[in-house]
Amino acid sequence: MRMVDLIEKKREGGELSDDEIRFIINGYMNGDIVDYEMSAMLMAIYFRGMSERETLTLTLAMRDSGDQVDLSAIPGIKVDKHSTGGVGDKTSMIIGPAVAACGIPVAKMSGRGLGFTGGTVDKFESIPGYRTEFTMDEFISLVREHGISMIGQSGDLAPADKSLYALRDVTGTVPSIPLIASSIMSKKLASGADKIVLDVTVGNGAFMQELDKAKELAGRMISIGNGAGKKTVALLTDMNEPLGYAIGNNLEVKEVIAALQGDGPDDLMEISCALSGMMLSLAKDISYDEGKALAEEKIKDGSAFSKFKELVKAQGGDISFIEDPSKFKTAPVSSELTADKAGYISLIDTYALGIASGRLGAGREKKDDIIDMSAGIILHKKIGDHVVPGESIATLYGGSPGRPDKPLQVIEDNLQHVLHDIKSAFTIADERPDKNPLIHEIMVTIHG
Amino acid sequence: MRMVDLIEKKREGGELSDDEIRFIINGYMNGDIVDYEMSAMLMAIYFRGMSERETLTLTLAMRDSGDQVDLSAIPGIKVDKHSTGGVGDKTSMIIGPAVAACGIPVAKMSGRGLGFTGGTVDKFESIPGYRTEFTMDEFISLVREHGISMIGQSGDLAPADKSLYALRDVTGTVPSIPLIASSIMSKKLASGADKIVLDVTVGNGAFMQELDKAKELAGRMISIGNGAGKKTVALLTDMNEPLGYAIGNNLEVKEVIAALQGDGPDDLMEISCALSGMMLSLAKDISYDEGKALAEEKIKDGSAFSKFKELVKAQGGDISFIEDPSKFKTAPVSSELTADKAGYISLIDTYALGIASGRLGAGREKKDDIIDMSAGIILHKKIGDHVVPGESIATLYGGSPGRPDKPLQVIEDNLQHVLHDIKSAFTIADERPDKNPLIHEIMVTIHG
Repeated sequence: MRMVDLIEKKREGGELSDDEIRFIINGYMNGDIVDYEMSAMLMAIYFRGMSERETLTLTLAMRDSGDQVDLSAIPGIKVDKHSTGGVGDKTSMIIGPAVAACGIPVAKMSGRGLGFTGGTVDKFESIPGYRTEFTMDEFISLVREHGISMIGQSGDLAPADKSLYALRDVTGTVPSIPLIASSIMSKKLASGADKIVLDVTVGNGAFMQELDKAKELAGRMISIGNGAGKKTVALLTDMNEPLGYAIGNNLEVKEVIAALQGDGPDDLMEISCALSGMMLSLAKDISYDEGKALAEEKIKDGSAFSKFKELVKAQGGDISFIEDPSKFKTAPVSSELTADKAGYISLIDTYALGIASGRLGAGREKKDDIIDMSAGIILHKKIGDHVVPGESIATLYGGSPGRPDKPLQVIEDNLQHVLHDIKSAFTIADERPDKNPLIHEIMVTIHG
Repeated sequence: MRMVDLIEKKREGGELSDDEIRFIINGYMNGDIVDYEMSAMLMAIYFRGMSERETLTLTLAMRDSGDQVDLSAIPGIKVDKHSTGGVGDKTSMIIGPAVAACGIPVAKMSGRGLGFTGGTVDKFESIPGYRTEFTMDEFISLVREHGISMIGQSGDLAPADKSLYALRDVTGTVPSIPLIASSIMSKKLASGADKIVLDVTVGNGAFMQELDKAKELAGRMISIGNGAGKKTVALLTDMNEPLGYAIGNNLEVKEVIAALQGDGPDDLMEISCALSGMMLSLAKDISYDEGKALAEEKIKDGSAFSKFKELVKAQGGDISFIEDPSKFKTAPVSSELTADKAGYISLIDTYALGIASGRLGAGREKKDDIIDMSAGIILHKKIGDHVVPGESIATLYGGSPGRPDKPLQVIEDNLQHVLHDIKSAFTIADERPDKNPLIHEIMVTIHG
């Protein structure tokens, strides 16, 4: 088998066999197939696509390229949840405790912030003492003892995906549905859960900006998950404005603490309960509506909050911050973004807010940048809200970007630059706009 | 400027600016742009194509990547001729002397055999003593003194094309019209001629098998040549059977010697005179028909043959072989390919004959293989000819493939294998087939 023949086959629109796809991934990992061959193949795939069978085989080959998590020592059905990313998306921190409070084990490995999206691991680490690195044995013990553990990625999961993604990133071959779907699912399938709930975001703060593309991606991921023997469902959720009001690590944790005490924003609660409900439905074999009601009940009666505190304590976090969120570090400087005319907020450039929050210090520009946990944005107005001239739309919290303890003048200057740049992120209209539905669609089968 | 942005631009169907194309070629040559980026770009170009301006700029950037031949020391208008390749194509060896005999300087650098096509340099080297390597000064002196020189490539012409072609060859990005056109023309433009006649072959023994694709390629090359300020015309010639009867190096030289003495096959003479006529038309500002008549006259009156002998002698060749072609080395073994039924030859798989000739020893499988000048095929029948069962269609001359002086049994076995494999290259039909026109079209402007 020669790689050039396989490239030509795909270039002509042919379908690669299972053997050919495994030859490609194994060859790439052992060095027989080199980057310039792979990038030509990836571009051919970009133009020609992949069948569902090809995509499944590619996903399984990437899953098999590294470690696979074995959660069998944890009794019960393990359901994982994965979001394709958004701004202000702190649902995992609500869903985990809510589902665990229902007696369903939550063994969740999350990622760090990337580009315009935050990461659950970073958010948890804004709680002083909270550890996100554990061995696999410790992770399983935590879940067995507390019914929940939420950590960073452990082990070398799907290294072929990591290598391929790095190549795609520099060769213009990222936005391909089969490549995105197989990338996400290879890691999910290696993570050991029995069933998977996907939160596929769509909108100007998501990777997929159009509903039909998001549906295509969701369908492909469902097909992969089910094809690999793991029941998979997807919720298509709206990301045309941030979820909740807080963007930035400890700002979001404070919003989570309030939410778990019954004082969360409507959109955040609806999405969190929907995703929790779907997970419970898969785990307990109950209806989605029953699952959702159960999650709502566990948040309302405080047992989800108790579970959250138990989780934080078990992983070394200082529980006094959860009990008194005013203890969290506050940003050294802040500034208001104000309305320059009266009207209704009609559009929010969510992507721009994600980037802005990162620039304030909540994200990394370079890989080894240190996050400022206090940096970020608190929205006061969201789509459909009325403003008058001079009224604050959002408060920007300027942290020390990249490295801690930069001079105050640098932090202040940076804040003013960011403030200037995101003024245009909010559109004010005379008419009150229609709100997008929060959940566009629930896909339980590919063609559903 | 980042390569990934340019890849994405081309991927989305955008048109690269001149600066961007020069950035890509210069960056690739100095190592700033690496193979995996370039191969993704090439595949994007395969799918999206290039505008005429992009193709011209790419060609000029590749031309400028290395040496450029300066023929200004040779008085008169220098016209180059280039064929896109065929089987049994020995026209250069007839055209060169015919055009030079008309007083037009011929300063021709040719290539070696590649794949299924032979090379003019290899054919000349089958004349004992004939040198094809000269310095540029010697080359120019030869043309000034004799009005003609035919050598191998001198200097480092279009090294960017060489690097790009090597990458295309292993990444499935060869068959792209703009990439093929710019590859050919970058070398032609670096070769120093004032005007260019292209012989674009089409048929089952050519790189372009369909007339519309060949016309597209010809049009693109004319556009490049004219865009670079060098008047360029193209003849689209048929390559659905070998040109003449001989395939293989000294077999073809013997056919050339006969042709220059007035005893050449009709198809070979027609194409040679047509291409010579077009070159003379461009050089002397006369009509194509006048040019063609002039070339025919110079062959008929023996002055082209005299010029050929002068050329051979000037470049060190043993003229006694030209005067007595029976002196050429003959192949150690030969075998007849016979008809198994009566009828008319209706199809010849010309590509298969080119490959077969190479396997007999007339071509190289590996780069440092040594050609057996005596190996090849002599056809006795061509399309439209009648055969009876047992009658010979062709004689195969088995040389020592790869290395000289292989054991006779190896040579004999090899011959029998080749004979077996090409039996199906000739189709015999009950009805006499229509002959293809030899010259499909003469393109003097892109839209002509």
